[in-house]
Amino acid sequence: MTAENTPASAQSITAAMVAIGDELLSGRTRDSNIGYLAAELTKHAIDLKEVRIVPDESAAIIAAVNALRARYDYVFTSGGIGPTHDDITAPSIAEALGLPCIYDEAAEKLLSAYYQERQLPLTPARRQMARMPQGAEHIANPVSIAPGFHIANVFVMAGIPQIFQTMVQNVLPQLEKGKQMLSLAIPCPLGEGTFGEALAAIQTRHPQTSIGSYPHFNPDNKNPFPVEIVIRAREESHLQQAAKAVEDMISTLLQTQT
Amino acid sequence: MTAENTPASAQSITAAMVAIGDELLSGRTRDSNIGYLAAELTKHAIDLKEVRIVPDESAAIIAAVNALRARYDYVFTSGGIGPTHDDITAPSIAEALGLPCIYDEAAEKLLSAYYQERQLPLTPARRQMARMPQGAEHIANPVSIAPGFHIANVFVMAGIPQIFQTMVQNVLPQLEKGKQMLSLAIPCPLGEGTFGEALAAIQTRHPQTSIGSYPHFNPDNKNPFPVEIVIRAREESHLQQAAKAVEDMISTLLQTQT
Repeated sequence: MTAENTPASAQSITAAMVAIGDELLSGRTRDSNIGYLAAELTKHAIDLKEVRIVPDESAAIIAAVNALRARYDYVFTSGGIGPTHDDITAPSIAEALGLPCIYDEAAEKLLSAYYQERQLPLTPARRQMARMPQGAEHIANPVSIAPGFHIANVFVMAGIPQIFQTMVQNVLPQLEKGKQMLSLAIPCPLGEGTFGEALAAIQTRHPQTSIGSYPHFNPDNKNPFPVEIVIRAREESHLQQAAKAVEDMISTLLQTQT
Repeated sequence: MTAENTPASAQSITAAMVAIGDELLSGRTRDSNIGYLAAELTKHAIDLKEVRIVPDESAAIIAAVNALRARYDYVFTSGGIGPTHDDITAPSIAEALGLPCIYDEAAEKLLSAYYQERQLPLTPARRQMARMPQGAEHIANPVSIAPGFHIANVFVMAGIPQIFQTMVQNVLPQLEKGKQMLSLAIPCPLGEGTFGEALAAIQTRHPQTSIGSYPHFNPDNKNPFPVEIVIRAREESHLQQAAKAVEDMISTLLQTQT
């Protein structure tokens, strides 16, 4: 957990996310935390392997966290750590880990000082934000003080995007990193149906790369489905060899078409 | 499955979604299909209960689809039904259901005619888009012809948002609907810490409603965390009673503050 400055050694460090909240499943709120975390983990050489969105229901949170924390190196959660009755993430995580959910003393002090300064009482609702599983460490929240927490390989963060993002930035330096996944995007003017087989053959010949093909819909284009071919690999040489093959494929197919 | 025009009878019809694609987990693509489906299902009185985002890996797709199709009335998938090697959704769904994955004749005819008109050959890559589990029915795709499909309670749709959205609209009339979930949003000028306990008491007194509290961060506001309190219920009377209680709570607390 405290792998700060650990040299990148492992080939792959994996992660999962649990986004918690009825509002994400009703369509009321369009989630932006998943995409943010995905991009940040990729930058930091951690592979996000699965995301689950679950409602504000303890059993659903516990099931998701327990399934994922056993399978991946890290689990990140968003949402459900505020001061209202539907904020049940802290006790749910405690239950998932078989730990008591306590009022963390240091968190109480932080909250107490914060609200005192604002001449607001530390109501039981506000005090609720000091709850965490016994033994958890804080994830600092400079936006609104109430901390997230991490315990074992589970990192519990707020749902409000500005706070979530700050917490992610506070957590990233503590995480062990894998070997950076390199990637290269090659724009392709041909449709997927034209190069599908040739690209599959390139993927087979370059097993240490992962090649994806991403069409977009652009009805005003001559080719309404322009594509980006994205190659990913952990070694620069593998990346470059596959890129050369893809570029050659595109040239050859373009010549055939004329 | 063919519940068109079925009267809304059941209290609750449930659904889950599996969003498939490495690009969603790498942060390269910010998903918009989840939020779209969530909002459309809510409009149509179907409760989205869980979403999973999984990579382009057969085992991951199969595990997610099998877990969810057993648990919910409907499962919707997005992504992985195009003509390239990383499009593995059709054979994965077939395997999940223990069915052979075949080239569907009607789909081949559609594709054949579509490409003939454009003077393009039906390459093996394009023909791949006719694959589906034996016995599946098409989900029409007026944008680019290649159909999605549904089999048992699983609906398989494209990942490109414009096509996904069209397919969702084609599927919705076929689905059985629950009793509409009604909802009402009450803007609240107070912070969550101020009304947390009172709101929890209201939730306890109104068990047939589900009350959520959604703060936003607005650093320029006097109260930097303005809140919307959202009440949901299947009966108008339950909704109105809870709304009255929430409005009274806000008035009382505002008076106390002055």
